[in-house]
Amino acid sequence: MNCYLDNSATTKPCKAAVEAATKAMTEVFGNPSSLHECGFSALQMLEEARRQVAKSLSADSAEVYFTPSGTAANNTAIFGAAEKAGRRGGKIVTTAFEHPSVENCMRRLEEQGFTVIRLLPDTDGNITAEQFRNAIDDSTVLVSLMAVNNEVGSVLPFDKIASVLRGKKSKALLHVDAVQGFMKLPIAPKKCGIDLLSVSAHKIHGVKGAGALYVRQGLHIKPYLCGGGQENGLVSGTQAMPAIAAFGAATAAVGDIRKNAARVCVLRDRLIEGLREIEGIRVNSPENALPYIVNISVEGIPSQVSVNYLSSQGVYVSAGSACAKGHRSPVLTAMGLRASEIDTAVRISLSRETTEDEINACLNAIKTEVQTLRKKG
Amino acid sequence: MNCYLDNSATTKPCKAAVEAATKAMTEVFGNPSSLHECGFSALQMLEEARRQVAKSLSADSAEVYFTPSGTAANNTAIFGAAEKAGRRGGKIVTTAFEHPSVENCMRRLEEQGFTVIRLLPDTDGNITAEQFRNAIDDSTVLVSLMAVNNEVGSVLPFDKIASVLRGKKSKALLHVDAVQGFMKLPIAPKKCGIDLLSVSAHKIHGVKGAGALYVRQGLHIKPYLCGGGQENGLVSGTQAMPAIAAFGAATAAVGDIRKNAARVCVLRDRLIEGLREIEGIRVNSPENALPYIVNISVEGIPSQVSVNYLSSQGVYVSAGSACAKGHRSPVLTAMGLRASEIDTAVRISLSRETTEDEINACLNAIKTEVQTLRKKG
Repeated sequence: MNCYLDNSATTKPCKAAVEAATKAMTEVFGNPSSLHECGFSALQMLEEARRQVAKSLSADSAEVYFTPSGTAANNTAIFGAAEKAGRRGGKIVTTAFEHPSVENCMRRLEEQGFTVIRLLPDTDGNITAEQFRNAIDDSTVLVSLMAVNNEVGSVLPFDKIASVLRGKKSKALLHVDAVQGFMKLPIAPKKCGIDLLSVSAHKIHGVKGAGALYVRQGLHIKPYLCGGGQENGLVSGTQAMPAIAAFGAATAAVGDIRKNAARVCVLRDRLIEGLREIEGIRVNSPENALPYIVNISVEGIPSQVSVNYLSSQGVYVSAGSACAKGHRSPVLTAMGLRASEIDTAVRISLSRETTEDEINACLNAIKTEVQTLRKKG
Repeated sequence: MNCYLDNSATTKPCKAAVEAATKAMTEVFGNPSSLHECGFSALQMLEEARRQVAKSLSADSAEVYFTPSGTAANNTAIFGAAEKAGRRGGKIVTTAFEHPSVENCMRRLEEQGFTVIRLLPDTDGNITAEQFRNAIDDSTVLVSLMAVNNEVGSVLPFDKIASVLRGKKSKALLHVDAVQGFMKLPIAPKKCGIDLLSVSAHKIHGVKGAGALYVRQGLHIKPYLCGGGQENGLVSGTQAMPAIAAFGAATAAVGDIRKNAARVCVLRDRLIEGLREIEGIRVNSPENALPYIVNISVEGIPSQVSVNYLSSQGVYVSAGSACAKGHRSPVLTAMGLRASEIDTAVRISLSRETTEDEINACLNAIKTEVQTLRKKG
C-alpha cells in the first residue's frame, strides 16, 4: 500500500482539477487576451476560476491576481510593497522561519538598504501578536508573516496584526503568505484587514503552475514580472490556463473547511497517540498546530535515512520542506531545537483525502524502522 | 468550419502534450524536490522534459532552465544580465519592435540608469547586422533582440550578432527572445554564440504555463524570482510539472522543422496569392518573413472590425499581438507604416497543423468581409 503523507510539499490533483485542466488543453485552448471567440471562451474560463478563488477567500474577483506559483505571488507582494516604500528603504518586520520564497526576498531587500527584523518563534513554533506589536514602529513599511508554518504547522496570529497596525496608526502594508493555511483554515483577508495574501494551487489538490495574490481593493503595487500586462497589469505572461482552471475547480471541490479539519484532527490525534507508543519519538509540532502537519524527531536516525526507509516501505514523508532539500531545517533551528532533534526530524503531512489505513500503515512503518535501524546502530 | 489562424497568440496543445500533462497530473504528481520515490519519479519526468527541450536547441540539458512563461524567461535573462553589469549601468542595444516582455524590462532598466538604444526596422520589418554593429560600442553591456518579429514575421539576424560582438571584442551579453522562431526555424544558441535565449511552450502546441531559458554553460546570472532555489537556483517556485512535461513532449512531436516550414510556405504563398486578388489589401510582412506569419492591412476596415467579422465566420485571426490588445501596434508604428495601414492591420498566423481548407476558408471570409463591410462604409 502506498501512503502519500507529504501533502505539504504537494498534493495529488483532484478529479475536478484534472478535468478542468483537460478542458483548458483541449476544448478551450485560446489565449484569454485574444479578441475573438476562442479568446473569449478562454477569458470566460479564466474569470470563472477567478470567481472561484475569490470566493474561497471571501474576496472580490477584482482583488485576485493569478501568478505562476506561490513563490511568484510572494515575490510580487514583497518587492511591490518595498518599491512602494521608495528608495529611502525602511524597516520590514517578518519572522525567522518564513518559507525561502519570503526569506530570500528579504535578503535581497537587505542588500538594497532595507532593515529586516526577524521575530523568533518559541520552541513550539509559536509567535505572538505581542511580539509583532513590540517590533513595529514608525519606520516599518511592511509586515510579512506566514499564516501557517510549513514544517511544524504552527498557526501564526495573522488575523490580529492588522489591528495591531491600526492601533499604532502604522502605514505599513501587511502581507500574509497563506500557502500552507489556505483551504485548511478559514482565511478572509478583507475581513482581517490584510493588504496582500499569497496562495498556491498545488497544495490544495490543484495542479502545479498556478498561484494567486490577493491585493486589497484600492491598493496599487508595481508589477514584478514585466511584459504584456496580463492580470490587470500586475502579472505579465500568458496565463497558465490549465493550471488556473484547475485551481478554481480545486477550491470549489474542497467542501467544508471546518469539517475537513475536524476529520483530519481525528487522524492526527490517532497518529500522535501511536507515535507516543514508540520509544524516542519527540513531537515538534505544537498542540495548537494545524492538524495537517505533524513534525517529529526520531532519536538516533538521521532525517534522510528515515525518509529513505519509509519510502522503501511505500510511505512518503519529508525531512523538512521540499524547498529546503539538503539543508538543516532553518525552521527547527529558529525554534531553538537541539541539533540532534533537528537532524532526525521528519514531517508527516496529511490532506483531507488521507485515510485511517494510511495513518496505520505509516505508524507500522515507523515502528519497524525504529526496530530495524536502531538495532543496527 | 472553424479556422484557428491565431497560432502566434497561442496554439492548440498536441496529443502528445496533453498526454504528458495528464500523466503529470495523475500518475506522477510528486514534487520533483521531494527526496522520496514520488519525488524521484517527478524528477525523472522533469529531466526527461529538459533533455527534450535541450535537444530541440542543440544544447546541453544543464543549459536549459524551465520558467513559468516566455515572459519570465525574458525577465530573468534581461534583469539578470543587467544586474551583472552592476550599478554603473551601461548601454543596452535592442530593437524598437520587441515584445512587451522585453520592451517593458528595458523601460524599467532605463529608470535604473541604463541607456537603451532601440534600432528601427525598415518598412519591411527587417533590421540588419550592420545596424547592430554601428550601435554596439565599449559601453554596451547587453544586446537583446527577437529571433522573429511576432506581428510581421520578419527574421532578425540573431545568428550573426555574436560574431559582431566578437569582432568588436565586446563583453556585452547577447540575449535572443526566440519565442516566435522556436521550432519554426533551426535555432542553435551554442553554435551561434548566443548567451541567453528565451522560448515558450504554448506557441509550439505545448501547454500554457511553461517557458525555458537557455543559459550558455559557464555563464552565471542572478535569479529574478527568489525562493526555494529550484532550477539549479535560477528560477524559484515548484516546477509546473504538467506544462513542463507537455513542453518536452511538444518539442519531440514537432518533427522536421524544415519540412514543416516548406509545407507552411506553400500554404502561405497560396494565402498571399489569394489576398492579392482582393482589392485594397496590403501585405505588411516582408517576402523573406517566416511563413507562419502574414500581416496585412485591409483598406477601410478597422482591425478589430475585421477580427470580429472573421470571428463571427469561424475564422480566428488577430489585430496585432494578443499581448498588445487595444493599443495601436508598436511594431507597425516602428516600421513606419501609415496610420491608415496600422489601424486596419490583421495578423494571420499559421501552424504546422494548418490545412489548405483553412486557408481557403479564411480567403473566402475576407472576400465576403470586404464586399459586405466596404459596401456599408
